Amino acid sequence: MSEPLRAVKWNGRAVQLVDQRLLPFQEKWMACDTVEKTAKAIEDMVVRGAPAIGVTAAYGVALSGRIHRNKPPRAFEAGVQRDMNRLRRTRPTAVNLFWALGAMGKALHGTRGMPSLDRAAFLEHEARRVHREDEDLCDRMGRHGAALLRNCQNVLTHCNTGALATGGEGTALSAILQAARRNPRLHVWVDETRPYLQGARLTAYELHRSGVPFHLISDNMAASVMAAGKVDAVVLGADRITANGDTANKIGTYSLAVLAKYHGIPFYVVAPTSTFDLSMKHGGLIPIEERDPAEVTTPRGLPLTRADFPVFNPSFDVTPGRLIRAIVCERGVCRAPFKASLRKAAGPKA
Amino acid sequence: MSEPLRAVKWNGRAVQLVDQRLLPFQEKWMACDTVEKTAKAIEDMVVRGAPAIGVTAAYGVALSGRIHRNKPPRAFEAGVQRDMNRLRRTRPTAVNLFWALGAMGKALHGTRGMPSLDRAAFLEHEARRVHREDEDLCDRMGRHGAALLRNCQNVLTHCNTGALATGGEGTALSAILQAARRNPRLHVWVDETRPYLQGARLTAYELHRSGVPFHLISDNMAASVMAAGKVDAVVLGADRITANGDTANKIGTYSLAVLAKYHGIPFYVVAPTSTFDLSMKHGGLIPIEERDPAEVTTPRGLPLTRADFPVFNPSFDVTPGRLIRAIVCERGVCRAPFKASLRKAAGPKA
Repeated sequence: MSEPLRAVKWNGRAVQLVDQRLLPFQEKWMACDTVEKTAKAIEDMVVRGAPAIGVTAAYGVALSGRIHRNKPPRAFEAGVQRDMNRLRRTRPTAVNLFWALGAMGKALHGTRGMPSLDRAAFLEHEARRVHREDEDLCDRMGRHGAALLRNCQNVLTHCNTGALATGGEGTALSAILQAARRNPRLHVWVDETRPYLQGARLTAYELHRSGVPFHLISDNMAASVMAAGKVDAVVLGADRITANGDTANKIGTYSLAVLAKYHGIPFYVVAPTSTFDLSMKHGGLIPIEERDPAEVTTPRGLPLTRADFPVFNPSFDVTPGRLIRAIVCERGVCRAPFKASLRKAAGPKA
Repeated sequence: MSEPLRAVKWNGRAVQLVDQRLLPFQEKWMACDTVEKTAKAIEDMVVRGAPAIGVTAAYGVALSGRIHRNKPPRAFEAGVQRDMNRLRRTRPTAVNLFWALGAMGKALHGTRGMPSLDRAAFLEHEARRVHREDEDLCDRMGRHGAALLRNCQNVLTHCNTGALATGGEGTALSAILQAARRNPRLHVWVDETRPYLQGARLTAYELHRSGVPFHLISDNMAASVMAAGKVDAVVLGADRITANGDTANKIGTYSLAVLAKYHGIPFYVVAPTSTFDLSMKHGGLIPIEERDPAEVTTPRGLPLTRADFPVFNPSFDVTPGRLIRAIVCERGVCRAPFKASLRKAAGPKA
């Protein structure tokens, strides 16, 4: 097995990103040695996945510190602040981005009065910590999730929840990879995940690279493989989880949850507690964003059909908590009633 | 509204086919003035859909008669037989093709002893009859189906079951079009129908051309629109229906049937009695053909993902009769218990 795949690396001088727009055809790395290049890479979808974007932005601030490290205090502070503002503007709705920039901002604030060189070193240290923390989260979610998959031969997953989306090995895909290390015969059904094809392009690539047996299917084939008894569990991620366990995730998730219920197959969500939004009572309150119709008609510029046909393209759907067997987070496994179990898991850090 | 769309026409000298490989981008007609061109058109998917292929082959035999019409009896007979064999080899598994060629073979046989010119005229007459019969079947299925959709505002369909697949206005799509004529506000959700995208390319085109309001969706969005209360009925076709109502149809059909059941939405199959296979007790006996993995990775040559990834690509699935509210055929509406109702419908022609 080759070196484990990572979406983001830091070599001390530049933020290194695997260009996800070229996957799975090419694994090409891009070295961002300016903050502007880093910000553009986030904007242009070189890197995607909320945690991976957060880690990228944190390294972007470390890079900023390095660039300004020989300046006098005031110029250092102004330079880094300006760069942080630039990074903040890349994705106005990315929660992890703001969280990571918040942590870096605190580090910047906490080093006021120190020499610029030391402040730069501390920012680099802090970015590495943000990254390591996400790796650790992935590892823990993966461990808890893998325990649930102990007796599975076939699992089905949707979208991309792996190394390409996070700072570590992923959320649901980390659980699958850890389970596969214990059980080399574990086989994965990968939903292609229309319209944006994250499954066909990214998850298939990650499994291929890790040597885990898999088959790619169209999303509408999942029901058939379930009916044939060839799915022991469905495992996938989450964008947002409300107090009652209702889960917003990539479009197609709800469909799989209903199908899994009908076929008596456990349906697991793997997501960090940072996705819990317990102030929201239920999923009916989550607004559903609609995305560019071109994703359906012309994904990645490939004309599947006429671009002028009317399209409905919701980016995600909401799965009711009652269809979810368990929600796995970094602190363990939450089961129904979710109102109590999620609150307990979301409590003060251990 | 422009002239109604047809997949196949006969102008007295050539078989005219709309090149379905170019749809929905271009509506380009191809005139086949030799039997070889007609056979190649069937092989190369210029025309598709079992009934449309049958009608095309019937006209191919009419064309053959025309080409050989000035020959002496023996040469005429040998020429037409040779051409029929050529047409028979185009699609080894197409039931309608054999049925249509059988009808033409009978017509050829029934005219033995007549002058070649008269035999040619009779073959042309017979091909037109095969075509008209299919148009009439479509019309009757559409009428019975439209009655079921009387109170619907939103229907959802899958694959292509329209004029492009048949000799007339289609099966399920005929029901939708007839319902839309009575209710101009009827709105259709069109499943794109991965992997081959018959919905995105052909059904969307037919509705667009007919001026019926629709939205194209990815197959995995159907559950969401159902949950939102925006689907009053699911209507689609069938490849084969067994004695107990189990229905083999385009992959994704079974998924929709389970989702419709979960959401309490009626699920209707529209198909001629020629698709009934009542000698087969249940759908578990139907072999599932697997198709080219490239349909999933590289549809129509467009590289969605790497062509070397392992793919599972079943061409259809089997929906249990218990998930089907009604099966509509040219003789009316069959309901559970299907064993009795299908047998009655399949009985001797009225």
